[in-house]
Amino acid sequence: MSLLVTGSIGIDTVETPFGKRDNVVGGSAVYFAYAASFFTPVRLVGVVGPDYPIDLKVLLAAQPVDTQGLEIRPGSKSFRWHGSYVADMNNAQTVTVDLNVLAEQAPKIPASYLDSTHVFLANTHPKLQQDMRASLKHAKLVVADTMNLWIDTSRKELHDTLKVIDGLVLNDGEAKLLTGEKNMIVAARKVLGLGPKFVVIKKGEHGSLLASRIEGSEEFFVLPAFPAEKVVDPTGAGDSFAAGMMGYLATQSVLSNSVIRRAMAYGTVVASFTISDFSLDGLRATSRQQIEKKYEALKGVTGF
Amino acid sequence: MSLLVTGSIGIDTVETPFGKRDNVVGGSAVYFAYAASFFTPVRLVGVVGPDYPIDLKVLLAAQPVDTQGLEIRPGSKSFRWHGSYVADMNNAQTVTVDLNVLAEQAPKIPASYLDSTHVFLANTHPKLQQDMRASLKHAKLVVADTMNLWIDTSRKELHDTLKVIDGLVLNDGEAKLLTGEKNMIVAARKVLGLGPKFVVIKKGEHGSLLASRIEGSEEFFVLPAFPAEKVVDPTGAGDSFAAGMMGYLATQSVLSNSVIRRAMAYGTVVASFTISDFSLDGLRATSRQQIEKKYEALKGVTGF
Repeated sequence: MSLLVTGSIGIDTVETPFGKRDNVVGGSAVYFAYAASFFTPVRLVGVVGPDYPIDLKVLLAAQPVDTQGLEIRPGSKSFRWHGSYVADMNNAQTVTVDLNVLAEQAPKIPASYLDSTHVFLANTHPKLQQDMRASLKHAKLVVADTMNLWIDTSRKELHDTLKVIDGLVLNDGEAKLLTGEKNMIVAARKVLGLGPKFVVIKKGEHGSLLASRIEGSEEFFVLPAFPAEKVVDPTGAGDSFAAGMMGYLATQSVLSNSVIRRAMAYGTVVASFTISDFSLDGLRATSRQQIEKKYEALKGVTGF
Repeated sequence: MSLLVTGSIGIDTVETPFGKRDNVVGGSAVYFAYAASFFTPVRLVGVVGPDYPIDLKVLLAAQPVDTQGLEIRPGSKSFRWHGSYVADMNNAQTVTVDLNVLAEQAPKIPASYLDSTHVFLANTHPKLQQDMRASLKHAKLVVADTMNLWIDTSRKELHDTLKVIDGLVLNDGEAKLLTGEKNMIVAARKVLGLGPKFVVIKKGEHGSLLASRIEGSEEFFVLPAFPAEKVVDPTGAGDSFAAGMMGYLATQSVLSNSVIRRAMAYGTVVASFTISDFSLDGLRATSRQQIEKKYEALKGVTGF
C-alpha cells in the first residue's frame, strides 16, 4: 500500500490564548504527511516558493515521507496564513492570507508516485482534485477534504468531484453549507446521495460522525473527541485527523465499516497530539508507541 | 431500592420548528418521574395549583409512579412556562414564565417516602435542596441538578449543597458559569473539587461527560448523544437523561464508574425518546423493551 497526499504547504503565523508563533511550518499537506507517516510511508505533493524559511526535506526526513513531489518553484512565493484563535478556539479568525504559489499551476505528480493505492486530496479547488484523481489510475481509495470557499464558489465542480471519490472528510460547518441541513445525521446522508461511499463529519471538540454505505445499507458511527484539558493550537487538527484515518486505512487490506471506525479513532488520537502544541511540535514529540497507548486510552474513556 | 424525585411540575407552552403545543404537561419532576419509572418505581414530590389542566394522578398511573407526594394546593396557581426553540433547537428562549406555586413553600415529603435510598433533587433553590437532603436520612445516593439562576443569585447556598450531595448533573453552560472554565474537562474537575463524588455534564446534541472520583482516582468518560435525525421538542431532555441514569442506578447494588457509564447510556437513550415528540408523548409511546433495543443500538453506533 502507498499513501499519497496533495494539498497546501504554508508559512503560518498563529495566535492562541497560549501565545503567538511567527512564520512556522503549516499547511494541510504537511500536517497530513507528518501525521500519517506514523502509520505508513507517505508521498507528498506540494509546492512552495524559494522564500520558504525551513528546509522541509530535512524536517520530514525524520519520518518516512517521500518529498520527491515537493516542488520549490523559482520566482514564486509561498502560501502564507495568519490566523487567530484568541477569541474562539473552535474557529480561526483569518488575519491575513496570501495564496501566492497556490493560485498558480498545480504541482506535478512524480512518475514514481503514479502507482499510489491510497490518496488524500487535501483541501484545494475541486477541479484540481478531479485532475489529480484522474492521474492516479491505481488508486483504490481516494478521500478528499473541501472548504466553504469551494462550496460557495465552485459548487458544480465540487459535485463532479464527489462523483469520483470514495470518501469525503469535512467539518460540520461545511457539511451544513454543502447540504443546507443543520442536523448532521441528515446532512451526512445527503452527502452520501452526492456520490461518496462514506463521509466523515468532523465536529472539533465534539468529535466526529461517520455515515457509510461501504457495506450496502447505511451505517452510522459517532465518536467523541479525546478529552483534552489543554488545547494550545487547533491548527492542523482536521488534517491530522484525516491523516491518522488514512494512514491506518492504508495499512489494512480490506475496507469495512469497522475498519473505518478504528481509523477514525486513530485520527482522533493523532489530532489530539497536534493540538497539544504549536505547529508540528505536538506531532514531532510523539511516536507510534504513544499513539497506540492513547488509542487504548480513547477506548477506555469511551466504552460502556 | 426506592427512587424519590422532587422538582417542578409545570404547564408548558412550547414552540419548535415542528409546531406549537399549548398548556401541555411539563416540569422537571414529571419528565423525571415518567422516564425513571421504566426502570424502577418512582416517588414524586411536587406541587401544583387547582388550575392544573390534567389529572396527573391518572396520567402517571400508567407507570409505577407513587403520587402521594403530589400536592394540589388550594388557592395557588401552577407553575407556567412558555418557551420557543424556533430560532435555536439547542437553547430555549423563554417567552414567559410564572413561578406561581414554585415561589411558595416547598411541598412536604410524605412519611412513607422517608426511607428512600435514591434521590434526585431536580433544579430548585439550593437551600431547598439542602433541606430535602437533610430530611432523607436513609438516602444512599443523592444527585442534584441546578441552573444558571441559582449559580448567579445563590452561589454560596449552592456551594453548601454541593458538599452534601453525591453527584451533580448540569449542562455545559451551567458548568462554565459555575467554574469559570470553558474547557469541560477542567470544569468537571473543578466541580469535583467543590464536593460531589461525580459530576455529569450534559452537552445536548454533543452528548455527555462524566468525571468521577467514586473509585479514588479521577476517571473520565465521554459519550455521544444518540444520533437523532429529527428532534421535535428538546424540552425535558436533560431531566429524562438524569431519569434514565438514576432509574438504572437505583436498580444496581453497587455504584462503580462502569455502572455510572451504563447509567449514562440509559439516560442518553431515554432522552432520545423524549425529544422525538412534544411533552411526554415520546416517553408515553415507548417501553422498557424499546429502551433496551435502543441501548444496544447506542452500543452499536459508538463502539470501535
